[in-house]
Amino acid sequence: MGKLERHATIADVAALAGVSVGTASKALNGRGSLREETRMRVREAARQLSFEVNAGARNLHSGRTYTVGMITTDTIGRFSIPVLMGAEDALGAGQMSVFLCDGRDDPIREQYHVKTLLSRRVDGIIVTGRRTQARAPISVGLPVVYAFISSTDPDDCSVVPDETGGARKAVEHLMAIGRTRIAHVTGPEHHHSARVRAQAVADRLAEAGLSVAGPPLFGAWSEIWGRQAVGMLLAGGTSFDAVFCGSDQIARGVADALRAVGRRVPEDVALVGFDNWDVMTRGCQPPLTSVDMNLEGLGRTAAEMLLAAINGTPSPGRHARPCHLVVRESSTVPLGPEARV
Amino acid sequence: MGKLERHATIADVAALAGVSVGTASKALNGRGSLREETRMRVREAARQLSFEVNAGARNLHSGRTYTVGMITTDTIGRFSIPVLMGAEDALGAGQMSVFLCDGRDDPIREQYHVKTLLSRRVDGIIVTGRRTQARAPISVGLPVVYAFISSTDPDDCSVVPDETGGARKAVEHLMAIGRTRIAHVTGPEHHHSARVRAQAVADRLAEAGLSVAGPPLFGAWSEIWGRQAVGMLLAGGTSFDAVFCGSDQIARGVADALRAVGRRVPEDVALVGFDNWDVMTRGCQPPLTSVDMNLEGLGRTAAEMLLAAINGTPSPGRHARPCHLVVRESSTVPLGPEARV
Repeated sequence: MGKLERHATIADVAALAGVSVGTASKALNGRGSLREETRMRVREAARQLSFEVNAGARNLHSGRTYTVGMITTDTIGRFSIPVLMGAEDALGAGQMSVFLCDGRDDPIREQYHVKTLLSRRVDGIIVTGRRTQARAPISVGLPVVYAFISSTDPDDCSVVPDETGGARKAVEHLMAIGRTRIAHVTGPEHHHSARVRAQAVADRLAEAGLSVAGPPLFGAWSEIWGRQAVGMLLAGGTSFDAVFCGSDQIARGVADALRAVGRRVPEDVALVGFDNWDVMTRGCQPPLTSVDMNLEGLGRTAAEMLLAAINGTPSPGRHARPCHLVVRESSTVPLGPEARV
Repeated sequence: MGKLERHATIADVAALAGVSVGTASKALNGRGSLREETRMRVREAARQLSFEVNAGARNLHSGRTYTVGMITTDTIGRFSIPVLMGAEDALGAGQMSVFLCDGRDDPIREQYHVKTLLSRRVDGIIVTGRRTQARAPISVGLPVVYAFISSTDPDDCSVVPDETGGARKAVEHLMAIGRTRIAHVTGPEHHHSARVRAQAVADRLAEAGLSVAGPPLFGAWSEIWGRQAVGMLLAGGTSFDAVFCGSDQIARGVADALRAVGRRVPEDVALVGFDNWDVMTRGCQPPLTSVDMNLEGLGRTAAEMLLAAINGTPSPGRHARPCHLVVRESSTVPLGPEARV
């Protein structure tokens, strides 16, 4: 988590204690009704991380209501909503009011929103969006935190998923269940996440003395591309016993196409997706193992860092948060309840 | 559209002219740069609907910036976001600022949000949510418009999809392509939308001297339920040449299960879903015909009605907006580009 180790935030304390940031703040500020066991666990976590109850944390529950602008740089949806929910969760209902603006990939529209937010005298701004690629910073005289996306200015505070780490966990899991011929099917090569994840796959396999089965296949973030990619792997004569996909939608398409040609998942081909989107992981036959970027956690951390910055304790730099792997039937032989149809 | 015929709104004018509400407002208020042809078309539409450029419309682009609270009664997501986007679209970026609050099905949390919004001196509140079922009104001394969901108070302004009309269009389409043994697989029987759509199916078939093939099957809003339901239809010996499903996810499951047993869609069984959710309609094999509730249109209408109410011209009552059917390969034999895999 890089910089986070040098500058522990209340989000780190919360994570270590296994509670929400709101609960951690209450515990550290002696507010709210918490079980004493919880309060002690949080304080112990704070001690371990030598976390200072800074101005930000002290003010989190001082009763002041913060007004925060949230700008999505492209249409609000599957990625920005969990971030928004997490941000709202961080302080509990009413502690923070969120002004939501949708930039829709339109810089002029975004500038208009920024002006509106300033005229609304917001305390700070959270910028989020659909792509993890770094974007030009928003220049305002206010604290700004970038969540999920990052700013091209290394001094800005960006809270992003560790996509490289997430892809490495997927590959390590597939190797751990004995797969050595791992293909990779992902999104457009010009897309930052597709490139980063594909590189992580190649690097992790190389560390194990392996290489990707066939070339990494770049295409659309869609089920149709996943189905087409299977046709390409088979037509190319690529020998593979696992496929790691850059998204759950792609993996879903791969699963359907493999079944159509009689290749069993996971027996013949183990399958792992990315996003842990329940609609896809549950709909997939069998249920899909996937990498979870913990978007709500990103939102909570971003909100906590923004409020700390508002209160004079900024957390500059790029903060990469860990992804975790959720293992389901597509990469384990025994069938669980999700697979019964 | 019931009440709308008695009280044409700028949204109706926009719809008739085939432009956005923002464009219609500009045309009627002589603001903004529009092609003269567009301006004339909007004015002709207004004349046809004997739409009065009321105080609300006149003020839409008077330069005043409105602050509107938007409360979702359950977690923000697939249904509330398009409504929010449509509401934001209605007036163009910056004309309206949206304070977004997520009630998460928690009345206490919702009350807290309402208080916060009042303390923020919002001009009005749009209430939306995931279910179309009527809910207890929010009692505040401000204009409130319910969008997608409706208020139990018939004097409140609610803008809702005409689910009955949408289900009837699906059945009429299936009958028009020659299907007479139409099964219905939908969500939980306690769910308002499931009941309303199932009743509409039974009524429309009865009008044609037909009845539902087998009993309507109520279950979860999931692909897994769709797959299970096919097993029940086959085990029950039900003869069917079409299935209309209460959601695209259910229809997707039905399509997969039919393919697994060698029933061809659409040749043997025509298939129609509900929601027109692109993730499902495109991923489905073949691409899925579906009923579209025009959620962005609901949001635009709700925002326009809210601002009209703020400006002294309320639109009380339940305003049902039409759904439309989007026909794809699952209910037409020739294959289109979406189906090429």
